[in-house]
Amino acid sequence: MEAKVVLHHEVPFTELGGGVKRRVLAYNAQQMIVEVVFEKGGVGAPHTHPHVQSTYVKSGAFRFTIDGKDVDVTAGDTIAFPPDILHGTVCLEAGTLLDIFTPMREDFIG
Amino acid sequence: MEAKVVLHHEVPFTELGGGVKRRVLAYNAQQMIVEVVFEKGGVGAPHTHPHVQSTYVKSGAFRFTIDGKDVDVTAGDTIAFPPDILHGTVCLEAGTLLDIFTPMREDFIG
Repeated sequence: MEAKVVLHHEVPFTELGGGVKRRVLAYNAQQMIVEVVFEKGGVGAPHTHPHVQSTYVKSGAFRFTIDGKDVDVTAGDTIAFPPDILHGTVCLEAGTLLDIFTPMREDFIG
Repeated sequence: MEAKVVLHHEVPFTELGGGVKRRVLAYNAQQMIVEVVFEKGGVGAPHTHPHVQSTYVKSGAFRFTIDGKDVDVTAGDTIAFPPDILHGTVCLEAGTLLDIFTPMREDFIG
């Protein structure tokens, strides 16, 4: 298997509405990096998925609600989510999250 | 299993020498996010590991050599590495990489 190099300017964003847009960056079967750009007040509604997820706060400030508990994070902070945990976020200051999924999200491509 | 939140300022860097330092951010068994900060000219010597790896270029510019082929990447670019592929990097402009490993790197904690 070869490495996959993804130059960010080659990847279009998908508008998700409500001040949130997403683009899928490099991935293979076991990992997928997804960049999610939020305007202030943008919401990632609470949801679950069977994928393990890590989130890196690239910029901005976000309030996550994870399994009913709030936590505020800013640039450089990270969160490791176990599978199937209820999580959502509200953007407090415009910024960008990197979400990494294991395995990759089939529902994000195609 | 609970989510793990890691505030970046709570995590110390490990100096790797040669203008490279690393800190381990959030992780669980399946994923580990590692931040690697390079001075210009800093080198990640070619190596292999059985872990799947994704790399996100947070800032700077880097020349990767992957399985004998060079590729130059800059901020926002990403690479998905399959297991056991030979890879290394030279930093062309000071910057930071995020490496995500699946499974986590037992050898990075101690």
